[in-house]
Amino acid sequence: MRALVIDNGLRLEKNYPTPTPPSGEALIRVRQAGICNTDLELLKGYHQFSGVPGHEFVGVVERAVGREELIGRRVAGEINAACGVCETCRANRPTHCPQRTTLGIDRRDGVFADYVLLPFANLHPLPDAVSDDQAIFVEPLAAACEILEQVKIQPTDHVAVIGDGKLGLLCTQVIALTGCELIAVGRHAEKLQILQRRGIATTTDLTTIASAALDIVVEATGTPSGFAAARELVRPRGTIVLKSTYQGEALPVNLTMIVVDEITLIGSRCGPFEPALQLLANKQIDVESLIQARFSLDDGVAAFERAAQNGMLKVVVEMK
Amino acid sequence: MRALVIDNGLRLEKNYPTPTPPSGEALIRVRQAGICNTDLELLKGYHQFSGVPGHEFVGVVERAVGREELIGRRVAGEINAACGVCETCRANRPTHCPQRTTLGIDRRDGVFADYVLLPFANLHPLPDAVSDDQAIFVEPLAAACEILEQVKIQPTDHVAVIGDGKLGLLCTQVIALTGCELIAVGRHAEKLQILQRRGIATTTDLTTIASAALDIVVEATGTPSGFAAARELVRPRGTIVLKSTYQGEALPVNLTMIVVDEITLIGSRCGPFEPALQLLANKQIDVESLIQARFSLDDGVAAFERAAQNGMLKVVVEMK
Repeated sequence: MRALVIDNGLRLEKNYPTPTPPSGEALIRVRQAGICNTDLELLKGYHQFSGVPGHEFVGVVERAVGREELIGRRVAGEINAACGVCETCRANRPTHCPQRTTLGIDRRDGVFADYVLLPFANLHPLPDAVSDDQAIFVEPLAAACEILEQVKIQPTDHVAVIGDGKLGLLCTQVIALTGCELIAVGRHAEKLQILQRRGIATTTDLTTIASAALDIVVEATGTPSGFAAARELVRPRGTIVLKSTYQGEALPVNLTMIVVDEITLIGSRCGPFEPALQLLANKQIDVESLIQARFSLDDGVAAFERAAQNGMLKVVVEMK
Repeated sequence: MRALVIDNGLRLEKNYPTPTPPSGEALIRVRQAGICNTDLELLKGYHQFSGVPGHEFVGVVERAVGREELIGRRVAGEINAACGVCETCRANRPTHCPQRTTLGIDRRDGVFADYVLLPFANLHPLPDAVSDDQAIFVEPLAAACEILEQVKIQPTDHVAVIGDGKLGLLCTQVIALTGCELIAVGRHAEKLQILQRRGIATTTDLTTIASAALDIVVEATGTPSGFAAARELVRPRGTIVLKSTYQGEALPVNLTMIVVDEITLIGSRCGPFEPALQLLANKQIDVESLIQARFSLDDGVAAFERAAQNGMLKVVVEMK
């Protein structure tokens, strides 16, 4: 099969071995996939990953021994393949299973290929109301929905999302559903327009927001300046949700001021697929506007180069 | 009056001006006071404080114009003097009032003196069941109780408190009341004995605790190694409560791993006096064992020197 492979850089292989599903896993023919910032990070060395990247996809199940009813179903898939038997899994935290592999991120080949494997438990058959273009956003939208699992946001709360990248735009739309007083902070007027069209307030100028006045700030840039802005905007006893990973080993954080101001910092990663699917089926989140380019898998290397350009939103890779 | 004064070092002044209470404040004759680590930090330059330090005290109200029923009452006092009218105060977060002064810490003379002023609203008359020795622990015990205001701790939770200093010993005893699976981690066998006498498990060897297995870790050392230990012990989706301030501007924190492991970090400072008073009146917290030395105010400089000795618990300064 064809596959994009990370191995000292990125290349297209035309004869990568088609995988054979072990017991409990399905073979899925990938239809299309989205390039995530994490994929670009992997290419720079994150996780020392080698293999096929990619984890935002829609595909059709071709083999599923013991779960034949899945064959022919169009699916999205959760990316953490958990052991299912350890203490963490039994405590219903499979996305934190210490033995987990992660699709296209950690010891498991991903979706920039004609075929991919995933455990049956990870598969979510898609309703007809969710298009292929929407479906590749289920995974990042689920990550945005994770915020609502972790933090109670009320209509009276004043909230900001910092970052107008792909994840920031999804987080902002999800949080807007709570009816809170929301402002999106970004650097790109054309991206913020996607939010404005949905009636969400935006700004490119942080100084227009009063310091230390927001109940909740979502940091979706993964940059030191984004973190500094979150710290500046949040009120005492407020909450900062960290939604992006940061380059480098560590960031200097003034923990004393976290104590004095009694700030809550919450790390937030993968989220629940069901609410994300529901929101997409209900057309409550505009994801189509985030798609800025399409490439065939044969042009996958060029697709990655395009995705790495400054300010790019979603680049889609089609397997046809 | 007599007062210990920080002003390029610490000295005893014999003729410091006795303060005159402004409207809404009481004049309190201090009976005794405890030396807190924060007092020692102030002496090293924290907050660029100059004036009378001290904020853990018991005293008797001598003047209270308009609240004469307070006169003669034995009181403890909350340390943050809030404006009462700003948005933060109206949102019931007076300990975070941006205009607040803080007793013996920030622009308000403290209790290592014969007399001190505090707003009426800050005073808590003491029940007879709370002795003078217990009363000087109301403030730090309230800070320990703040943890229970911020984090729901259940009997099924596995919890560690790191640090066997004064605050660590109070936090551990408060958390033990929840019935959770608790272990105290410290460096001083003789301090941990105070906890063992109350049936609380302790260890001086971090490596006896499984990594990434605890639901909640309270960091009460204010040191980089304490923070590293908390990070090591807490499980994915667990909570670290930061209970101590840290020397220096900032600590390097791996925010990416906070995101990946979905850790919650909660800064925790001053807490509610009512539960602390109740716990002391009920004899549910052993504070007397924390007292290791007593000095008269006349020997206050020596008292501070003693308190600064490695591993010291509470040093009491008596005003008689």
